[in-house]
Amino acid sequence: MKAVLMHKFGESDVLYIGETETPKAGEGELLVRVRATALNRADLLQRMGFYPPPKGASEIIGLEMAGEVVEVGAGVAGYLSGDRVCALLPGGGYAQYAVIPADMAMPLPENLTFEQGAAIPEVFLTAYLNLVQLGGFQSGMDVLIHAGASGVGTAAIQLVRELGGRSLVTAGSPEKLARCSELGTTAGWNYKMGSFVPFVEEQTGGRGVNIILDFIGAPYLTDNLKSLAMDGRVVIIGTMGGAKASDVDLGTILARRLQVIGTALRSRSPKQKADLTRAFWDFAFLRFADGRLVPIIDSVMDWKDVSAAHDRMAANLNTGKIVLRVTD
Amino acid sequence: MKAVLMHKFGESDVLYIGETETPKAGEGELLVRVRATALNRADLLQRMGFYPPPKGASEIIGLEMAGEVVEVGAGVAGYLSGDRVCALLPGGGYAQYAVIPADMAMPLPENLTFEQGAAIPEVFLTAYLNLVQLGGFQSGMDVLIHAGASGVGTAAIQLVRELGGRSLVTAGSPEKLARCSELGTTAGWNYKMGSFVPFVEEQTGGRGVNIILDFIGAPYLTDNLKSLAMDGRVVIIGTMGGAKASDVDLGTILARRLQVIGTALRSRSPKQKADLTRAFWDFAFLRFADGRLVPIIDSVMDWKDVSAAHDRMAANLNTGKIVLRVTD
Repeated sequence: MKAVLMHKFGESDVLYIGETETPKAGEGELLVRVRATALNRADLLQRMGFYPPPKGASEIIGLEMAGEVVEVGAGVAGYLSGDRVCALLPGGGYAQYAVIPADMAMPLPENLTFEQGAAIPEVFLTAYLNLVQLGGFQSGMDVLIHAGASGVGTAAIQLVRELGGRSLVTAGSPEKLARCSELGTTAGWNYKMGSFVPFVEEQTGGRGVNIILDFIGAPYLTDNLKSLAMDGRVVIIGTMGGAKASDVDLGTILARRLQVIGTALRSRSPKQKADLTRAFWDFAFLRFADGRLVPIIDSVMDWKDVSAAHDRMAANLNTGKIVLRVTD
Repeated sequence: MKAVLMHKFGESDVLYIGETETPKAGEGELLVRVRATALNRADLLQRMGFYPPPKGASEIIGLEMAGEVVEVGAGVAGYLSGDRVCALLPGGGYAQYAVIPADMAMPLPENLTFEQGAAIPEVFLTAYLNLVQLGGFQSGMDVLIHAGASGVGTAAIQLVRELGGRSLVTAGSPEKLARCSELGTTAGWNYKMGSFVPFVEEQTGGRGVNIILDFIGAPYLTDNLKSLAMDGRVVIIGTMGGAKASDVDLGTILARRLQVIGTALRSRSPKQKADLTRAFWDFAFLRFADGRLVPIIDSVMDWKDVSAAHDRMAANLNTGKIVLRVTD
């Protein structure tokens, strides 16, 4: 099969489409002809030699895909060749074929294209994991979503809306805030205007929010703690602004019984990922089918243009997912 | 009724036994003739004007007691005058009478004296809350308990043992470590010998522990994070060593999916406390009745000696609870 491979020379590299071995479906697995994959920031890190794939996973870049089942492994019930699915991958998405455990497959509703399907797994499963399973979201809660126009942000806004909560977002431009608004966020704050603390205070009548989804890390930690209500939780998904936090006030954490939760999806066990996938798809399938939930796509490019796609992400130009069409 | 009251003059104060109004049992409540109460560090703080009681609670010091029911409020089933109970209180324990919601009562097994009963609520409910409900303890887990010889520490060691886990402790003297050993801890570390990090590493084969119960706060945070296994949680119950943490590595928190959890028992809602009490007593009643769980008592003093008792706690001389007998 063809796949996106990498030539390393010194500090530099080149991505190119080359030939590699086609994987085989083992017991409990599905072989999928990949029709679309999507970019993640982790792809850029992996390319630079950070964020290596878990043991046993493909060395090929790519954490998600959509395509059609072409081979059903022994012991798998409920799938036939030709079924359209999307799934999270531990690696190997930038390829014509990928093998997945059958319990990781999310059958695509008819109304969604492969490009749309490929834009679902990482951002929606990350948002669901951190909002519901780690954040403990319950109907009626207030959630602050940083980087609201990001992939995970746009998914989280929709989930909060569907689950009966109120979301506040931060983003870096009026256009991005408008996009969040269309998706159902209650109010937005342009972080270039200053700290979000007074914004959250005003929007929650001084109570603070119940959950914060954060990608910034150290520079936001103190303000995040200030913005949490009693028993509030800040779920830290990324540390794009830095990882070393100073002057962390444990007194605040105790007095308001706060939780600081670190999270990562890729390193979770296959069983944890399968359980998450099942819980999420039970909740989401019908909502994608009738359009209440929508995958947010920035752009669709042919996978031959993978380098340009990476450049677009590295430059932070995208709102929503950058999807690659995996052609012959 | 008589109660321990306080004269404030400037920076100083005097505790004395004086007369005050006897509370009445309302709907769903029990009036209890208090026979014993026990000291908590919060009592010292309250005396100094910190850690005020929650709204509506008694101004009298005292967070727990044991005694006999003397009046059963309307709508209460299952209790009769003369029943022996112990309970957590939002305040008012240093008094001859206390009113409690009936769903906060823990009926004492026959083998326990009032003095022993008064030594149970705070430390065991705190340990259960933080170990099981917030720490997510499951059978087979490893738990690091700082201040292992403290009231909460000695309760937590017993709970971990009964729940099928392994506990490691830190303490400041060989005598305290020996006491922890008798209660069933797996291994102990004298923190005066240096950082506990290599100790935990060795004891867990490099994996780290699943849960840490911490009272020290800022000075221990970095070493606590280093000592946690994947998905590990540090539950911060106190900040006796300071509250401002520096150089907190969020990268570690993310990479190992750690959780930093602040906790407090007193500020929880009556419903939360009642639920906790029921869950704990279902687990613990028979174990106290047959001696698998034991209240750890440092000393029993007459409540007339309340000032001496406070001095003993302030000087950190106690191992286990200091109990006050509430006499006529």
